[in-house]
Amino acid sequence: MYRTHTCGELRLSDVNKTVTLAGWVQHVRNLGGMTFIDLRDRYGITQLVVNNEEDNELSQQVKELGREYLVQVTGKVAERSNKNKKIATGDIEIIIHSLNVLNSADLPPFTIEDDTDGGEELRMKYRYLDLRRNPVRKALELRHKMALEVRKFLNDQNFIEIETPVLMKSTPEGARDFVVPSRMNPGQFYALPQSPQVFKQLLMVGGFDRYFQIVKCFRDEDLRADRQPEFTQIDCEMSFVEQEDVLSTFEAMTKHLFKTIRGVTIEGDFPRMSYADAMKYYGTDKPDIRFDMRFVDITSIASGKGFRVFDDAEYIGAICAPQCAGYSRKELDQLTDFVKRPQVGAKGLVYVKYNDDGSFKTSVDKFFAPEDFKVWCDECGAKPGDLLLILAGERRQTLSALSELRLEMGNRLGLRDKNRFAPLWVVDFPLLEWDDDTQRFYAMHHPFTSPKEEDIALLDSDPGAVRANAYDLVINGNEIGGGSIRIHDDLLQQKMFKVLGFSKEEAEKQFGFLMNAFKYGAPPHGGVAFGFDRWVALFAGVESIREVIAFPKNNAGRDIMNDAPSSISQEQLDELGIALKDSGK
Amino acid sequence: MYRTHTCGELRLSDVNKTVTLAGWVQHVRNLGGMTFIDLRDRYGITQLVVNNEEDNELSQQVKELGREYLVQVTGKVAERSNKNKKIATGDIEIIIHSLNVLNSADLPPFTIEDDTDGGEELRMKYRYLDLRRNPVRKALELRHKMALEVRKFLNDQNFIEIETPVLMKSTPEGARDFVVPSRMNPGQFYALPQSPQVFKQLLMVGGFDRYFQIVKCFRDEDLRADRQPEFTQIDCEMSFVEQEDVLSTFEAMTKHLFKTIRGVTIEGDFPRMSYADAMKYYGTDKPDIRFDMRFVDITSIASGKGFRVFDDAEYIGAICAPQCAGYSRKELDQLTDFVKRPQVGAKGLVYVKYNDDGSFKTSVDKFFAPEDFKVWCDECGAKPGDLLLILAGERRQTLSALSELRLEMGNRLGLRDKNRFAPLWVVDFPLLEWDDDTQRFYAMHHPFTSPKEEDIALLDSDPGAVRANAYDLVINGNEIGGGSIRIHDDLLQQKMFKVLGFSKEEAEKQFGFLMNAFKYGAPPHGGVAFGFDRWVALFAGVESIREVIAFPKNNAGRDIMNDAPSSISQEQLDELGIALKDSGK
Repeated sequence: MYRTHTCGELRLSDVNKTVTLAGWVQHVRNLGGMTFIDLRDRYGITQLVVNNEEDNELSQQVKELGREYLVQVTGKVAERSNKNKKIATGDIEIIIHSLNVLNSADLPPFTIEDDTDGGEELRMKYRYLDLRRNPVRKALELRHKMALEVRKFLNDQNFIEIETPVLMKSTPEGARDFVVPSRMNPGQFYALPQSPQVFKQLLMVGGFDRYFQIVKCFRDEDLRADRQPEFTQIDCEMSFVEQEDVLSTFEAMTKHLFKTIRGVTIEGDFPRMSYADAMKYYGTDKPDIRFDMRFVDITSIASGKGFRVFDDAEYIGAICAPQCAGYSRKELDQLTDFVKRPQVGAKGLVYVKYNDDGSFKTSVDKFFAPEDFKVWCDECGAKPGDLLLILAGERRQTLSALSELRLEMGNRLGLRDKNRFAPLWVVDFPLLEWDDDTQRFYAMHHPFTSPKEEDIALLDSDPGAVRANAYDLVINGNEIGGGSIRIHDDLLQQKMFKVLGFSKEEAEKQFGFLMNAFKYGAPPHGGVAFGFDRWVALFAGVESIREVIAFPKNNAGRDIMNDAPSSISQEQLDELGIALKDSGK
Repeated sequence: MYRTHTCGELRLSDVNKTVTLAGWVQHVRNLGGMTFIDLRDRYGITQLVVNNEEDNELSQQVKELGREYLVQVTGKVAERSNKNKKIATGDIEIIIHSLNVLNSADLPPFTIEDDTDGGEELRMKYRYLDLRRNPVRKALELRHKMALEVRKFLNDQNFIEIETPVLMKSTPEGARDFVVPSRMNPGQFYALPQSPQVFKQLLMVGGFDRYFQIVKCFRDEDLRADRQPEFTQIDCEMSFVEQEDVLSTFEAMTKHLFKTIRGVTIEGDFPRMSYADAMKYYGTDKPDIRFDMRFVDITSIASGKGFRVFDDAEYIGAICAPQCAGYSRKELDQLTDFVKRPQVGAKGLVYVKYNDDGSFKTSVDKFFAPEDFKVWCDECGAKPGDLLLILAGERRQTLSALSELRLEMGNRLGLRDKNRFAPLWVVDFPLLEWDDDTQRFYAMHHPFTSPKEEDIALLDSDPGAVRANAYDLVINGNEIGGGSIRIHDDLLQQKMFKVLGFSKEEAEKQFGFLMNAFKYGAPPHGGVAFGFDRWVALFAGVESIREVIAFPKNNAGRDIMNDAPSSISQEQLDELGIALKDSGK
């Protein structure tokens, strides 16, 4: 028995008990002939005391302790004269009478404190020390608790968790699949799942009408800022359901998580917004609706007045920043710089200050009359004291840039409180996306997503206008999950392949295996997959999913703690029947 | 809404309700002008009735139904005159008034019945249909429930589940690692974990003193009868513990699972047996102690009497089969054939029938006197009516063969009831194993396993005699789990590497990364990993772990349902910087 109690559990009611604790030395300080040690474990911090004069031997021992030494101490619990209200054990201390160094420690490369002096690179390299810090520990505890609550909720709803294969079939479309050479089948490869999509649909065919899995998925792609080559999904599928059933089931799950994890009760139904409206009013399919500031399309009223930038624009959009007419030259320059950043991609920013006295100060005074500005402001619902920010250009690009600008203004105006949550269903996604390069339609989600019943007729006449039974859950501008109702009708599926430009043979080759399963009484089904890492990060209030993953990789897909990936031996390559290309290394 | 109720929930109290069900057609039969349909879903079977004369249109529709058609029906719940006590809905039936075929079905390649006519190969190829069968569904439901109970128990004990990487570092010792080429780092490879051993030890260094994970692990090896290239472990680790703490924690978890999953209360502590005793009395480190029949070493009393086979033997072992003296010639021949099978590997079998009248009939009458047989029988505790079965030869091989023979006798005597459970801790495993080929010691478990305190001195003088703080949980002869207390002391670890024949440089190269982490106040820790598939199979009462895996692979590591692994495109190979060897395919 290394301890009788943890460092987080002793209270005033334990005074006079003799206890044994084990933990890491957080601080040692001397004060008035006494030595005080903060002893830390996963559960908290407990103050230890040594009277240097009364116990000389112990006091000598204590002098040799360094930060992060691991010690076992025995002593008596006493009430503290100088109570610390910040920690749960702050009412007591332990007058120790023996100390046993279980393990010494080299000086850590950064401080093990909530605000550490270690940069991210260093913390990742010594992740096992970073894990000792409260914020990291708490994030992983939250992750654990969230997974438990997901499982509890779904189990209560008759969902069963079923493990699907990690070593699966490589598919011709799997350009971003990680592949795994098989030693037993030289020259052949498994693929790691980008999602268990096919398997969960097979489980529906197999009659498991409510499946879920918290499961690792993999994608070998150039990593954007906050992607990981392996990530975790809450993957779900249901049979005998329509879109409404899926949404209500997972809206309830989401509320359950808000309640149990964050103590937040979300009243009423989540708002729903069509993809078309999301694009029109927010320029993105994942709007942050914690604040309004919707786009106003002023193309028709602002073009044709001789201002070339506007006259040439496919789209002119404005947002109204309330009470910002007083913005300084510097602030407006910052915003202009912001929209010109390559990630945002606008060519410039037009502003209209609607001054308190009703006059206007704008960046386009010489092209328009005050009456014009008044019309724009009225259209945008702007009042004196407000500021219009206007972008113009090619529609898609301008919507996207305006979306970024809107979020930036939300930040500046303090409208994006991370402790406020605004969930939203985005629905009615387009079924298909046209690709100019290859001159064909692609499935926006995947080829098994079902079109809306009322739009099926459009599959022949206007495929691009067909809406899908597809939906995303968006919280605070983060896409937390998405899914769809799948096609389970053979004829409709064949039609879909035709629209996607597959010959019968190609469809058979790529999807024959699943199509074959569908011949045996496949039920109507649909599902959803949630990005677990992202959701945990949102609830933990941290920016990066790296903060909620125990051992994350960096943006180059490398684990810098243990230097993976790395080369393997010639012998291993030989056994796998593969060779490195010269270009390889 | 495709249904108002499932096919498993309607009871007498629902009579007269109008309900809508959806499910698969299990049977259609005509009887006295009525058509009866058994409709099946995951929850059960409900009988539907159509009065052929009253509803001619419906009766025509019903005639076209085939097995596994998916239908939606609406009708009124009625009490059955001819109740079926075998099913939960057997008191009622649905008088249907409308039927909607949701999907037709090709004729299934095998019957969807508890006792199907499909062979394993066919069932695996059409696994999505096999999943509709009750035994398969129930096994996966049991698996789900077990995982939930494991999580519940461990969470209640302050364990937290932490996901460790699937894409990890390939190690020089990882001869059976699956490797994953990285597109972003051409020529470099990740490895899939054979276990999260290193990561869980790092989590202990990181202060998470109670970790667990239900996690996929991978091993690219020639698959024995019941192995899978990917398998699931319940992986656990604790800090500040000694062996006793680990055993008591996981004994409690095991009891919890017995109780909640199988309704079995295990009274008292699990028995413990040293590895030495397990080998001595059962010839295996995973004895099935549902029955006794211990080995008796009769080497000293049976050799030296002129019977060459015995005189040359390093070991002569006997088991006593109670009340089997009446075995026929044929039965004894079967046993002789059994022990001579290559998997068992004995050269022959000696038997001694201790007849009811006190006389002996043996296969070695001409070499020994009745007094000799009496001595052997007394030594073995045999009574008149019993049968001694004796094997002789090289010790290790003979112990192993005798173990197989003991299990075979257990089967013949009906002593291995799969609904009786006999858990056992096997403890005090040797720390090291000598390898004659390479003339060095290898770690029996892994190089971080700690020796028993009292045996440390032997590391210099007699390394082979050193016992480890290592333990296995064995239930009914299955190794369900195993683990050890790890070394956390630097000096002891260095000594261990020395005994294993590592130079300081080699140790650094292979284990430096973990050793470095150990420099920062590593806590005393230890853990255990359970084979989840095996445990589920045991509780489900099935022989093979394939029966408790949704989409298993065959013995060649192939998924015959979707034909994985398979070849990948030249383009993919190029991107990964690898090429196939000519020998490859």
